[in-house]
Amino acid sequence: MLHKILELIEAKKFAALKEELKEMRAVDIAEIFEELDVKYCIIIFRLLPKDFAADVFAYLSSQQRKDIVAAIHEKHLNDIIDELYFDDMIDFLEEMPANVVKRILLTASDEERKLINQFLNYPENSAGSLMTIEYVDLKKEMTIKQALDHIKKTGVDKETIYTSYVLDEKRKLEGIISLRKLVLLDENLLISDVMNDDFITTTTFADQEEVVVLFKKYDLLTVPVVDKEGRLVGIITIDDIVDVIDQENTEDFQKMAAMTPMDEEYLNSSVFSLARRRIVWLLILMITATFTEMIIGRYEEILTAVAVLAASIPMLMDTAGNAGSQSSTLIIRGIALGEVQLTDYLKVFFKEFRVSLIVGASLAIVNITRMLVLGNPLNVSFTVSITLLLTIMMAKMVGGTLPIIAKKLKLDPAIMAGPLITTIVDVMALLVYFNIAGALIGF
Amino acid sequence: MLHKILELIEAKKFAALKEELKEMRAVDIAEIFEELDVKYCIIIFRLLPKDFAADVFAYLSSQQRKDIVAAIHEKHLNDIIDELYFDDMIDFLEEMPANVVKRILLTASDEERKLINQFLNYPENSAGSLMTIEYVDLKKEMTIKQALDHIKKTGVDKETIYTSYVLDEKRKLEGIISLRKLVLLDENLLISDVMNDDFITTTTFADQEEVVVLFKKYDLLTVPVVDKEGRLVGIITIDDIVDVIDQENTEDFQKMAAMTPMDEEYLNSSVFSLARRRIVWLLILMITATFTEMIIGRYEEILTAVAVLAASIPMLMDTAGNAGSQSSTLIIRGIALGEVQLTDYLKVFFKEFRVSLIVGASLAIVNITRMLVLGNPLNVSFTVSITLLLTIMMAKMVGGTLPIIAKKLKLDPAIMAGPLITTIVDVMALLVYFNIAGALIGF
Repeated sequence: MLHKILELIEAKKFAALKEELKEMRAVDIAEIFEELDVKYCIIIFRLLPKDFAADVFAYLSSQQRKDIVAAIHEKHLNDIIDELYFDDMIDFLEEMPANVVKRILLTASDEERKLINQFLNYPENSAGSLMTIEYVDLKKEMTIKQALDHIKKTGVDKETIYTSYVLDEKRKLEGIISLRKLVLLDENLLISDVMNDDFITTTTFADQEEVVVLFKKYDLLTVPVVDKEGRLVGIITIDDIVDVIDQENTEDFQKMAAMTPMDEEYLNSSVFSLARRRIVWLLILMITATFTEMIIGRYEEILTAVAVLAASIPMLMDTAGNAGSQSSTLIIRGIALGEVQLTDYLKVFFKEFRVSLIVGASLAIVNITRMLVLGNPLNVSFTVSITLLLTIMMAKMVGGTLPIIAKKLKLDPAIMAGPLITTIVDVMALLVYFNIAGALIGF
Repeated sequence: MLHKILELIEAKKFAALKEELKEMRAVDIAEIFEELDVKYCIIIFRLLPKDFAADVFAYLSSQQRKDIVAAIHEKHLNDIIDELYFDDMIDFLEEMPANVVKRILLTASDEERKLINQFLNYPENSAGSLMTIEYVDLKKEMTIKQALDHIKKTGVDKETIYTSYVLDEKRKLEGIISLRKLVLLDENLLISDVMNDDFITTTTFADQEEVVVLFKKYDLLTVPVVDKEGRLVGIITIDDIVDVIDQENTEDFQKMAAMTPMDEEYLNSSVFSLARRRIVWLLILMITATFTEMIIGRYEEILTAVAVLAASIPMLMDTAGNAGSQSSTLIIRGIALGEVQLTDYLKVFFKEFRVSLIVGASLAIVNITRMLVLGNPLNVSFTVSITLLLTIMMAKMVGGTLPIIAKKLKLDPAIMAGPLITTIVDVMALLVYFNIAGALIGF
């Protein structure tokens, strides 16, 4: 496809190209844009009918949009923006420089401008920033037949017509009704008799994570967003929620690997932005890790006397870190999915105790066998293996419970992941190691 | 709510309880079941009207379903199963013991039994295991009016009526049409003229991850599943896809923390099952980590002579491990979301080179300052800091590229995460450390 389009552009066969593009899906054209030179993208973009161009535009990356905005006429840009759904337009305005936004706002009506400004002010990651205003509203006095006629008349520009919102004269949300019901039920029934008046809503300032929970729990396709007075201000649709789920998971992955989360894609991020988001935690962890220096410094004589003890330090630390990360990851994920509650603290602690006993004992047995076979002295092999058992147990109990404690302290459980747990557990491992060595080998 | 329900049960006010339950949502009742004793759950379950009971049943955990199956009459169970959507019924049958399944199949018609057996045979995590058969089918000769009448007649039992599937007499899928179009367009138009015949499909044996990609890319609400001959065998709906996204993410989190992935929730898993899924990787990593023993053993004389060098080993290893995990996590996630491709190998390598130079230099500067302030000799402080810079750079380049290499080798990139990267990077860090120490401090 890409190849064919390139050929057509280079041969300047624009009529044929136009026909070719008409047969394609917007998202597929947007995907091809990623592979093409900017100047070719602009040629293609100009060939698209304006409603289709708006569809393609909604799928483009921030940088691609900027390139196109810079290259097309203001009139053409305004046409495109008129065709965008309201939520896509807000997304677009949010990423454009102030002067572009100003120019666009100049062409909007007073009412539109007020609405746009209101939406631009919703905090990032709030329900308000996700919603759109293209919904179907009905009156409860309507019959189903009247409602369907109303939908036929007004539905074309709505983001969804599968749920309609029943509003009173003050736009207060009184009920919702699915198109499924409207189509399946007798057309002479009154909306007030068939609408659902025990509906789920969210508010403009709700965090997007809470909204995701609602969609998952109640298997929703849309959720209405209301203000403090219960008036409908917008709706959120499932396609945007799927994106939010990905975004929230990406954030968790990044936090758990000790990075400040970022929205941009890796390949689109600048080197400095990437570095900045990594340095902070690495520094904190590096400074924390220097506790281990003091511990080793204090027990230097054991290490000098029994040099072979030093050799096992990396293995002990790595295994403890891994064992702790396993537990903390399971619990962080369990909390994120709502499977593990704060009240499960003791259950988790006791479970990790038993699991770690099995895991630690298994590894200790393998390790003592390995060390003896390699010809290490019994007391050293025994010291290392007992330390292994004890540190795995500590690591798993610390790793399993710290995320819950973080949650209790209203911190993000995701920071209690591998890197931090490893650092904490390393200190514990060394202390245990040297104390057991002191006792068993004798100092 | 829970409190009120408990009171009503204990006071044996079953009529009032029944009224109370009628006002609730199925998923909320299922949630309350988690807090209640089994015998109370069964009392409540028996009070529910059968279609509502089926809704609640679909939300219960595997163990709760088993408890209920054991407690209710076969007649009642069959009523519930009749009310379940086909995909929920298959999920249920998959988790029941063979004798229960057999009993249920005995009451099914020949045709039903054949269909059930076919569905039970689809591999776990395949499109076939996600789909349902309650869809609306149309003929292309129908007018929109006829299609709507057909939907009115047959739609009640369908999982969705928002998309209809146009089939020929051999059930080959010829087109799809949304209810949106059916409602908005002129009712005298023919389905063949308005249906979309360039539609997205998947096949029964497609992996669920591929299906998720389709839903995300094309913002779908449903996708049709066809067999090799292009005949429609079922449809997959977005609510199940949201669950799959969570499940796939959980798997990635688990793999990245060096565990064999599992489907069960943490608190519902047995201690042995949890231990088993953790031991394998811990053992592999522990054995791998013993390479570090050999390296330390080889350089024992440096350590004994300059004992302070040993003190920095944990900090160096932790920082290198963290730096490598950051990079590998970003790339693993980028691959999972389709943002990083195999062909981006060199781009990633070069980007990580530059990022790691900034990050490594920053940390090295902080570290040398810290060590000198603490009164360490210049040559030791310098050795540690240069090692820090070099190992951070190696760690980031290894962490950034190994996931892509894994993908190229058709391995799961998620295994190239923190734990494995840390182990690899530790070996490299120690080799660099001792060589630099040898050169700078002199041996």
